[in-house]
Amino acid sequence: MHKVPVGVLGASGYAGRELCGLIARHPKLELAFASANEQRGQRYRMGSSEVTYVAAEDAPLSSAEIVFTALPHGASAKWVGNARSTGARVVDLSSDFRPGVGESATNAPYGLTELMREKIPGADIVANPGCYPTAILLAIAPLLKEGWVMPGATINVSAASGVTGAGYSARPDLLFAEVAEDFRAYAVGNEHRHLAEMQAVTKELGGRNNDILFTPHLLPVSRGILATITVPVEQHTEDPSLLWRDCYNGEPFIEIADQPPSLRDVVRRNVVRLSVTKAANVRQPTLIIISAIDNLMKGAAGQALQNANILLGLSEQAGLPA
Amino acid sequence: MHKVPVGVLGASGYAGRELCGLIARHPKLELAFASANEQRGQRYRMGSSEVTYVAAEDAPLSSAEIVFTALPHGASAKWVGNARSTGARVVDLSSDFRPGVGESATNAPYGLTELMREKIPGADIVANPGCYPTAILLAIAPLLKEGWVMPGATINVSAASGVTGAGYSARPDLLFAEVAEDFRAYAVGNEHRHLAEMQAVTKELGGRNNDILFTPHLLPVSRGILATITVPVEQHTEDPSLLWRDCYNGEPFIEIADQPPSLRDVVRRNVVRLSVTKAANVRQPTLIIISAIDNLMKGAAGQALQNANILLGLSEQAGLPA
Amino acid sequence: MHKVPVGVLGASGYAGRELCGLIARHPKLELAFASANEQRGQRYRMGSSEVTYVAAEDAPLSSAEIVFTALPHGASAKWVGNARSTGARVVDLSSDFRPGVGESATNAPYGLTELMREKIPGADIVANPGCYPTAILLAIAPLLKEGWVMPGATINVSAASGVTGAGYSARPDLLFAEVAEDFRAYAVGNEHRHLAEMQAVTKELGGRNNDILFTPHLLPVSRGILATITVPVEQHTEDPSLLWRDCYNGEPFIEIADQPPSLRDVVRRNVVRLSVTKAANVRQPTLIIISAIDNLMKGAAGQALQNANILLGLSEQAGLPA
Amino acid sequence: MHKVPVGVLGASGYAGRELCGLIARHPKLELAFASANEQRGQRYRMGSSEVTYVAAEDAPLSSAEIVFTALPHGASAKWVGNARSTGARVVDLSSDFRPGVGESATNAPYGLTELMREKIPGADIVANPGCYPTAILLAIAPLLKEGWVMPGATINVSAASGVTGAGYSARPDLLFAEVAEDFRAYAVGNEHRHLAEMQAVTKELGGRNNDILFTPHLLPVSRGILATITVPVEQHTEDPSLLWRDCYNGEPFIEIADQPPSLRDVVRRNVVRLSVTKAANVRQPTLIIISAIDNLMKGAAGQALQNANILLGLSEQAGLPA
Repeated sequence: MHKVPVGVLGASGYAGRELCGLIARHPKLELAFASANEQRGQRYRMGSSEVTYVAAEDAPLSSAEIVFTALPHGASAKWVGNARSTGARVVDLSSDFRPGVGESATNAPYGLTELMREKIPGADIVANPGCYPTAILLAIAPLLKEGWVMPGATINVSAASGVTGAGYSARPDLLFAEVAEDFRAYAVGNEHRHLAEMQAVTKELGGRNNDILFTPHLLPVSRGILATITVPVEQHTEDPSLLWRDCYNGEPFIEIADQPPSLRDVVRRNVVRLSVTKAANVRQPTLIIISAIDNLMKGAAGQALQNANILLGLSEQAGLPA
Repeated sequence: MHKVPVGVLGASGYAGRELCGLIARHPKLELAFASANEQRGQRYRMGSSEVTYVAAEDAPLSSAEIVFTALPHGASAKWVGNARSTGARVVDLSSDFRPGVGESATNAPYGLTELMREKIPGADIVANPGCYPTAILLAIAPLLKEGWVMPGATINVSAASGVTGAGYSARPDLLFAEVAEDFRAYAVGNEHRHLAEMQAVTKELGGRNNDILFTPHLLPVSRGILATITVPVEQHTEDPSLLWRDCYNGEPFIEIADQPPSLRDVVRRNVVRLSVTKAANVRQPTLIIISAIDNLMKGAAGQALQNANILLGLSEQAGLPA
Repeated sequence: MHKVPVGVLGASGYAGRELCGLIARHPKLELAFASANEQRGQRYRMGSSEVTYVAAEDAPLSSAEIVFTALPHGASAKWVGNARSTGARVVDLSSDFRPGVGESATNAPYGLTELMREKIPGADIVANPGCYPTAILLAIAPLLKEGWVMPGATINVSAASGVTGAGYSARPDLLFAEVAEDFRAYAVGNEHRHLAEMQAVTKELGGRNNDILFTPHLLPVSRGILATITVPVEQHTEDPSLLWRDCYNGEPFIEIADQPPSLRDVVRRNVVRLSVTKAANVRQPTLIIISAIDNLMKGAAGQALQNANILLGLSEQAGLPA
Repeated sequence: MHKVPVGVLGASGYAGRELCGLIARHPKLELAFASANEQRGQRYRMGSSEVTYVAAEDAPLSSAEIVFTALPHGASAKWVGNARSTGARVVDLSSDFRPGVGESATNAPYGLTELMREKIPGADIVANPGCYPTAILLAIAPLLKEGWVMPGATINVSAASGVTGAGYSARPDLLFAEVAEDFRAYAVGNEHRHLAEMQAVTKELGGRNNDILFTPHLLPVSRGILATITVPVEQHTEDPSLLWRDCYNGEPFIEIADQPPSLRDVVRRNVVRLSVTKAANVRQPTLIIISAIDNLMKGAAGQALQNANILLGLSEQAGLPA
């Protein structure tokens, strides 16, 4: 059976490795190359399969129909161009082409698949969303579209991520003995680099002067994001979760849960799992949305593959564990 | 040197054990008894010292000048009465005598020491605060007293606690394999049993129709609470942290930090460590307070001992690791 | 496509749950029932599929071609009989039918698949091996068969297991706060209940008065077993690993590694991964074998499914992640 | 009250930081300087006290009566010389002056305090033992001295250490996401750099051609070492633990336990905790010793301070948590 050759640039980071593993198990794709400059020549094992890294400049870009770029922010745009010049289509996991990231605003559609699906098939470049924006925007989109959010109200997001969200870099603050038994906020003061991406898309989805106040935290777990989102609303229905069930009806990768989701519900799965609860004991009507994803799956490699499946006309679910 | 005899009822739970350990190392106190009904007759070792549990009904209550009651909520009030009837003074770690907990409203002062210090010395019973309320109320008290909080605004609290906060009970959901690599919200919908305690004290401290919206989470760590608190304000100063520095000037157990605190800053210490940051990128002026405590120390046993030191006329810091 | 109906008795424990998850994803099997007496009526979710537990006595045993019994040791034999009486064949995950376990010695072949494969196809009952014996016996079998072990020498095994090895039981010593940041030996003194199983099979495989000295430890991880085995030998070859490579040539679920394996090499995979190293700096020639498995996969549910595949004439690898 | 000034060279590593913390709380010592070349000028907080790092070359060596050198192996000898030349006495935490480490064999006594106590008081340099040797040598010394070990027999040691044992270095293999939920052996093949130290001291203590076969493992915990030691013996008494109780009678930092110790028994304490058990079900009489220490306390900083207390004529227990 013919398999479609795809390549991964930046394959030694956590998202890149996850992507290589997914491709190795994908029924219709095969890995044409995997680049990692510092580890060039080294082998990386994924279960019973294996890949040998090449330097990015030695990667046979033209051999791939799709190139995934999982390079650091800022370093990606150039390689997206290189891949495009060989005719490959690109799914870019960096922030370089995402909304709200300034000069790189392009025609690349934003690959938040469930909300932007119709723009993907014909794209040359897909800007794969950030992990936090995926968890948060899919959670609040129905509210924004339906116009329930109190105009001018701040959407409050307290989120926590496993350490793979910080990437595979040998930083002393990410050593086991520094992270275990700890929990800390970072980018405190609404300064996280994902904020502009979320603000831009919130506006596009119908936000009415709704700012996002976002405080991320570092969890002593390897993978997973849990976002706790409180939204002041001017209206809602008796069972507000029906809005989400209706909005995401039939979506294979979105689960509306009766109970608040936890990381273990989503880890190693390409899903967003959500719960919606009305706040008791407050005068201002408020909804509390808990949203959980695996930052490396739906938050990175899984969603990238979901977008690649669409680009290639394959089943959107091909090769993706639900 | 004469040491003051004190007793602990409910000494096999996490707070009770911590308390026994603190008493064993305290320069002026000695442990008269430690009760644990199910473990009666068993020995419990704390470093190089040891205690043998007795049943509560066999505890020589009259031998203690102070009795600490670390019993389950609801079960404490009766034993507080028993201890009082022997003439002992009581520091009660349960919620039975705390503000907002309905029928048990009494004359017992609320032992949030730094805010209520002057009421403690003459008390017969001190209602030791809950762990979450300690972290949160000490964080927002300066704001409330100073009148900075926007009238009618909701104070949003997303907090996370280590598993000892759930007590030493053999619940399957607290097994290692269920908690490790997970993170979950609980009491979602503003339904936590500590809420009433926080609402009542918030009002007392000067809240102007300010509701608290509180979402706690369970962390895969043994101990520590981190609360991320966002407060819409109608005014503040250029460096808002000066308000806290001023308010808590000279307090040995409150630290105002330049950087957001993390659990490892406070674990095994009887302190609250706080940071205050202005939110960028939002129209509504908002302060973000990060508050960290050790739930078993400042959140339970440490604060109980701090209150006992006051009751006994000892240095408030005696036997407490800062 | 017709799928073969299979049932699981004792489906709420860790091994039972793992088995239900594997069956749900198996291309040729379907779950006829899953029993869990205490959770009867409750639903259990495995990714995107779900099962509703029934009481064992309500399980439609006759609807299943294979019944897996994942019941506590001692409680299994009766239900194996019940299942057999309806004509189902049984893979028993308890120790009730294993070698060395006294009165229950039967004709049930021992399902250490790679060593006993020819005895499985015609069996009515397969005694699925224990998790530690799987890791250890597959590691030392080539040595025993080849006659390399020093006669009379003790085979020293220090092994460590994740907490799911202790089962899903609400024991206080298995709470997160008791296990995290800890490491402890148990059954110290060569008293572990798996010892007889290992001694019996060691003898059968060619041991010459070779006792096993086995010290297990509890790891603060959820799953995985690592066994460090030192074997005094009277002979070996220049590259001793060739013996294992030869002995297990073509085995899909046994990996002979150049570097010592670690848990992350095997977790969620149905493999044993082994390394063999000659000890330097000792006078007595000694081999050090490191053996790693996932206790819930190759150590329980995965191997059980491997045996069921053989019983049903399916590919041995069907539905098993390598 | 006059306090003795002491200095720490290499104060940013885990052992160095632990030492600074101990000194800060020591009743008779004060910190004259703490060096850390890369962090020069940075402050490091230990609870409520703080230190500012200087470069080693800027450290006022002559201001200290004792200098602790917690520098990397190989880099220490030079600085020990520098410190000596100012008249300071030195406790060296590196391996540079330890037995078995070749050319640096000197007159520095080996600071395994309980066994070598009489050699410490007059020393200029004390070679502080490695963490593994401390746990293992104190465990087997009574056996060796008493002549119980089978002549020529191999002493088998399987030990596991928390990640601080690998030092505070930003190695990718020590990142949280690489260590959590994992367990791995290292230096497999009896090649660990601590082996020579253990072999040399074993011989000195009375070993009769007894080799040590040592396999260390990396635990997903921050601190603590547990060593599982099996020793073939030619004789022992009915209750073999009496040998240890007798040998270590009155030692404040050695505990002989009835139950096998675990890491939580010793973490943050300057003790070795041991159990001794006869192996059942083996023909060769064998004792199993489980030995637990905190690698940063009795295994490094605590023992260094214990030796410094002796050098200074202070109580050996001063400033050390038992």
